[in-house]
Amino acid sequence: MDFDTLVHQPTRLQIFAYLYRHDEAAFSEIVDELDLTEGNLASHMNKLAEADCVDVEKQFVDDSPQTTYRLTDHGRETFEDHVGQLEALIESLDE
Amino acid sequence: MDFDTLVHQPTRLQIFAYLYRHDEAAFSEIVDELDLTEGNLASHMNKLAEADCVDVEKQFVDDSPQTTYRLTDHGRETFEDHVGQLEALIESLDE
Repeated sequence: MDFDTLVHQPTRLQIFAYLYRHDEAAFSEIVDELDLTEGNLASHMNKLAEADCVDVEKQFVDDSPQTTYRLTDHGRETFEDHVGQLEALIESLDE
Repeated sequence: MDFDTLVHQPTRLQIFAYLYRHDEAAFSEIVDELDLTEGNLASHMNKLAEADCVDVEKQFVDDSPQTTYRLTDHGRETFEDHVGQLEALIESLDE
């Protein structure tokens, strides 16, 4: 069983889970909800965008720039595969 | 939710799961079952022993040195806590 560290890394695992549950989320919302620094979140989001796991949308809301993220289909599949691996590991403990 | 990287790191998560299921295991058995190099396993086992998560026993079997490992009570609790966190994350996806 090989865990994909793109998803498994602790902070990114929580970002994936958050976006999976919330469909789309603003940068500032994720910073608040996951208690991350802006620099830390930006760095992880760059990695996820490069891997084609998140779509990034930049727009102006009330004249302020706002960046929102959502998982791509590839991102959802990648995360679901990973959750499947974690579930398999957890289930193996009862054997 | 803060994941303890001592347990969460992919290879160590699998070592924890293996020892949790097998009570005790020889070095060579773990190398084979988890498809690790000896150097890689030794390095992770040193970390786990330093953190008081595994007990190490060295003995001679048929004149050959053999090292066996088992989780300490602290190691079992640490792993169970971590599995609980992973289960909570997975369950949150259905909310």
